[in-house]
Amino acid sequence: MSEVKVHLVGVEGEAERSVTETTTIGELFAELFGQDRSAIAAKVNGELRDLSKVIEDGDEIEPVKAASDDGRAIIRHSTAHVLAQAVQELFPSAKLGIGPPVENGFYYDFDVETPFTPDDLGKLEKKMQQIIKERQRFSRRVVSDDDARSELSAEPYKLELIGIKGSAAEAAEGASVEVGSGELTIYDNIRRDDTVAWKDLCRGPHVPATGYLGNFKLMRTAAAYWRGSEKNPQLQRIYGTAWESRDELKAYLTRLEEAAKRDHRKLGTELDLFSFPDEIGSGLAVFHPKGGLLRKVMEDYSRQRHVEDGYEFVYSPHITKGQLFEKSGHLDWYADGMYPPMHLDEERGADGQIRKQGQDYYLKPMNCPMHNLIFAARGRSYRELPLRLFEFGTVYRLEKSGVIHGMTRARGFTQDDAHIYCTREQMRDELKNLLTFVLGLLADYGLDDFYLELSTKNPEKFVGSDEVWEEATNTLREVAEGSGLELVPDPGGAAFYGPKISVQARDAIGRTWQMSTIQLDFNLPERFELEYTAPDGSRQRPVMIHRALFGSIERFVAVLVEHYAGVFPPWLAPVQVTGIPITDGHVDYLYDVAKQLKSQGIRIEVDGSDERMQKKIRNAQKSKVPFMLIAGDEDMAAGSVSFRYRDGTQKNGVPVADAIAEIVEAVAKRVQV
Amino acid sequence: MSEVKVHLVGVEGEAERSVTETTTIGELFAELFGQDRSAIAAKVNGELRDLSKVIEDGDEIEPVKAASDDGRAIIRHSTAHVLAQAVQELFPSAKLGIGPPVENGFYYDFDVETPFTPDDLGKLEKKMQQIIKERQRFSRRVVSDDDARSELSAEPYKLELIGIKGSAAEAAEGASVEVGSGELTIYDNIRRDDTVAWKDLCRGPHVPATGYLGNFKLMRTAAAYWRGSEKNPQLQRIYGTAWESRDELKAYLTRLEEAAKRDHRKLGTELDLFSFPDEIGSGLAVFHPKGGLLRKVMEDYSRQRHVEDGYEFVYSPHITKGQLFEKSGHLDWYADGMYPPMHLDEERGADGQIRKQGQDYYLKPMNCPMHNLIFAARGRSYRELPLRLFEFGTVYRLEKSGVIHGMTRARGFTQDDAHIYCTREQMRDELKNLLTFVLGLLADYGLDDFYLELSTKNPEKFVGSDEVWEEATNTLREVAEGSGLELVPDPGGAAFYGPKISVQARDAIGRTWQMSTIQLDFNLPERFELEYTAPDGSRQRPVMIHRALFGSIERFVAVLVEHYAGVFPPWLAPVQVTGIPITDGHVDYLYDVAKQLKSQGIRIEVDGSDERMQKKIRNAQKSKVPFMLIAGDEDMAAGSVSFRYRDGTQKNGVPVADAIAEIVEAVAKRVQV
Repeated sequence: MSEVKVHLVGVEGEAERSVTETTTIGELFAELFGQDRSAIAAKVNGELRDLSKVIEDGDEIEPVKAASDDGRAIIRHSTAHVLAQAVQELFPSAKLGIGPPVENGFYYDFDVETPFTPDDLGKLEKKMQQIIKERQRFSRRVVSDDDARSELSAEPYKLELIGIKGSAAEAAEGASVEVGSGELTIYDNIRRDDTVAWKDLCRGPHVPATGYLGNFKLMRTAAAYWRGSEKNPQLQRIYGTAWESRDELKAYLTRLEEAAKRDHRKLGTELDLFSFPDEIGSGLAVFHPKGGLLRKVMEDYSRQRHVEDGYEFVYSPHITKGQLFEKSGHLDWYADGMYPPMHLDEERGADGQIRKQGQDYYLKPMNCPMHNLIFAARGRSYRELPLRLFEFGTVYRLEKSGVIHGMTRARGFTQDDAHIYCTREQMRDELKNLLTFVLGLLADYGLDDFYLELSTKNPEKFVGSDEVWEEATNTLREVAEGSGLELVPDPGGAAFYGPKISVQARDAIGRTWQMSTIQLDFNLPERFELEYTAPDGSRQRPVMIHRALFGSIERFVAVLVEHYAGVFPPWLAPVQVTGIPITDGHVDYLYDVAKQLKSQGIRIEVDGSDERMQKKIRNAQKSKVPFMLIAGDEDMAAGSVSFRYRDGTQKNGVPVADAIAEIVEAVAKRVQV
Repeated sequence: MSEVKVHLVGVEGEAERSVTETTTIGELFAELFGQDRSAIAAKVNGELRDLSKVIEDGDEIEPVKAASDDGRAIIRHSTAHVLAQAVQELFPSAKLGIGPPVENGFYYDFDVETPFTPDDLGKLEKKMQQIIKERQRFSRRVVSDDDARSELSAEPYKLELIGIKGSAAEAAEGASVEVGSGELTIYDNIRRDDTVAWKDLCRGPHVPATGYLGNFKLMRTAAAYWRGSEKNPQLQRIYGTAWESRDELKAYLTRLEEAAKRDHRKLGTELDLFSFPDEIGSGLAVFHPKGGLLRKVMEDYSRQRHVEDGYEFVYSPHITKGQLFEKSGHLDWYADGMYPPMHLDEERGADGQIRKQGQDYYLKPMNCPMHNLIFAARGRSYRELPLRLFEFGTVYRLEKSGVIHGMTRARGFTQDDAHIYCTREQMRDELKNLLTFVLGLLADYGLDDFYLELSTKNPEKFVGSDEVWEEATNTLREVAEGSGLELVPDPGGAAFYGPKISVQARDAIGRTWQMSTIQLDFNLPERFELEYTAPDGSRQRPVMIHRALFGSIERFVAVLVEHYAGVFPPWLAPVQVTGIPITDGHVDYLYDVAKQLKSQGIRIEVDGSDERMQKKIRNAQKSKVPFMLIAGDEDMAAGSVSFRYRDGTQKNGVPVADAIAEIVEAVAKRVQV
């Protein structure tokens, strides 16, 4: 047999190897890695493939480890198959929908007569473990459309997919890990006696055998329309999570538990910060006084920082005639995210004929078009640039009711939105200052574990010249690299109108949140014909930068609530100090201390209730107040207080002046305790 | 002849008089006042009547002077008749609509083939003066419907009115001064030779003769639908103004001229404060950087004052499900002022059947229902009261496009809105503090010429017990009287849900603006079933107070712009100081001064342009900057500046430190220069 040559990627110490021409990738990896089975699939010439694939001459092969993003997606996808197999064994009449991997796990949709119960999930898990113990092989074969139709004649949903294989619709569903070939393939689950246990229409790839799986858990069920449209039948979806090891699974479940404890919707109620009244509608929060205070402190500080950084404050309405969004293009490319129009000002005569045309008014999903009108309200000179227009602009976006999640995915939210208009020469400095500004501000809020993501041009879909894109992208990259932070590329991920940097922050339990975005825009300045007069008298088009630091204030508040688990640092705490008298006789003394603190802007409450002191301390602890000042007879005599912290430590006999100084300093310095 | 007895009201020194039974009111007044013809009509038993009316036994008669609100309304209404008479003499085919008095004047609507030209107005004024010179009598006679129809057969619009005389529709048009009797009356204009010059269907009353008129001016024309509905034919409206004396007319025209110069829409553009872009729609302003700064300064100060006064800050969305406004009742009694709904979240199957009911979402016209949800979000104790919830809440109200006027009558505006929940015992103190707070804040903005209006119960339409109304009204009255300000009663003017005090402020040119309102509400606490736990453990309903101090920020900004004619006091001026170098060599020196001022929060711009110094001074004056600091060689050598004020006075050789101190103090003290 002759030999073929392979190029190896990501294999330490080896870049090329020759193997006999029938060698599979699995065999190559066994040669290379011995007993180590951590490579569960491969990237062949950039495409994900099964280990069973036979190597071709010249293939570039990169191992895909279980402990990688691609590896986990394959494990999750394969686990979804095992789930579907288990469902059809226990519920033989169940018809299959689709079952893709998703973040942290997978789901599979089934047409069943009655929804699954929590009890069913337990039974399914057991059945899945049996299948895994049987170490069935995942085996791929290409089929013709007709063969697939006849093999899957009992699966109406799969039959529907056969007709539209490779369509955009299917891709949008995340129905399978992308392979790229247009072939139709079926994966058989084959027992060790070579009988076929189960099969599914699937693009793969998969782990070699079910024995590679096992670190999974079924999480919950939900109703879901077939292919996401309410016009279609409703299926039952089972969500699960799956990982490359038992430890990773356990760590994830612990994170979930921790996240549930920190859920901003739960803490929002417990700490009386905000709520989502039924009468108003989901995704629309009201801020109660304590949450309003937190938000106001954030906004006040943001305003101060923006003034210092040379921003100018503008205001714009929440509604506008459709004309504006025609001009900006939003009605072309963003209509799905917008609320339906309100038709106004139409006048009809007694004969029913229209006397005056009405207008469609829309809630704004973005502030940019309005800021452009402000820029264009009069002639601009280069002397005015960079012009930085800032607004706390509340926008409304029509998220589907199923995806709304408290304030992290809301229908109405307030962007700390700015649009910067500058010359091309100013772009570099402006972006650099902007990134410094962003990271400094986020750090003040206790977020300091970041990485950056750079979204670059999608060659299929962009406006503006290659030259400007290149300059802008290079500038963003240099600025990002200059920050010293990890930079993750997102090739092709830019919007059609310009490249973007986004700041991804890790919170206290390791979750990543997209925070600030800095986005160049080559589209709107053209559409609005924005111009300034250059020093030579010529008319030039400014560069436009969109940026939001918090992203949305509501979402940022939610992230902070979850990051701090409600235990806010003193400067953000709605109540910073609770005064706790040992008996009624000490109340007035503490009111006097409170007065002094209030005069320095400190938010203090004295607990004058009838509760016993220990109960008052517990109440203050429960509401997570940073500092307690306790006073009894001795304190009154000495002009002191007992100074108690959230962690339960306590200093007795602290002179009032010292206590005040410590509190004022902790607030002023934005201490993160 | 026997005598009848009359009771006199408002006649000095006389309360009763006996007159012969054929005496008219005009004759009585001639007896009483001799040559003084300033009483042009009378109130007889509370109803306005002509002087030609014959007195009945026991009548209570009060003279109506020309220089009174009722008197001016009669003069304006009579002038409207003279206008209509003039129109039909010059344009014989013109058909009459209605012609009521309005604020400061009157209008009359006509169906004519071509709209009136400004030239026509001049001709009409001349013709009116002729009619007035002829001293025609206004003569009233009662007619039957049939007679009226036959007399007015050539007037289709009048014929339509005959069918609906006394209807609510007619009253809403302000078609005539209220008489109250259901009789149909025609007024003839009778020449001195007793021939009838003209006649009109009218409830009157009128001045005795056209000779009482003459101090009028025709202002402008406009199109207007018959009876206000776009379903009806379009008529041509002529507006005029009329007064009791030449001096009053001149003073009014001067005020108008002055107001035009101060028009916030004009100054908004000239000073680059705000604009009303066509693309967005009328009644919806965008604030440019300079206007945004002014607004931010106002908001910052308002926030500070509200914090000091114990308000808690809340936030609520701009849209909500209709359910909330059903609960609050707004969809019953305020629907006309609301934008049309947006229908969301409806799901339909492939068969077109609704799978999930959708919801109507509305823009909020008021914030109160949302604040009530916050109050009701958890149990409340008497210890938490008074609870004062504050929000800069932007609301949207569907004003008819014809009545929108810049930011003083807008479709979207931001209320500095608070709702106070307190016990009945706390009501008095709360209202008292509130009025002090309001007047203090308005005075800080340079408004200090006020009167108060107290709107009390409309016995036909109210909710809540008489007892609570009485207590609340008395409390409001006492508090208002305690303020020492003029108190104008507005009997029956309260909304159905509670009595109100409004603060009316006079601006620099004597116009009155309704500013702050303090409104009690006995309705919403019931509808939302608001409760707190009293000290005895019982559940009690709180008293609810609505209050807005600026009213709307947009409107307040507009009023300030007009009040100050754009010449803002230093603390509100968008740019407080302009630095003017005599030559390029002095720019850096002024930048250094600017840096020191900026570090103290002063807004300074250094004019580094190529213009000559005199031009720079003129530019700064044109943009109404409070202070200019000019520097040349001598100043640099001495560490001084030339300090120039808006009025053109200038102090030379002022040490920089002194200049800074003076500016900082003027800003901090909110000096009104």
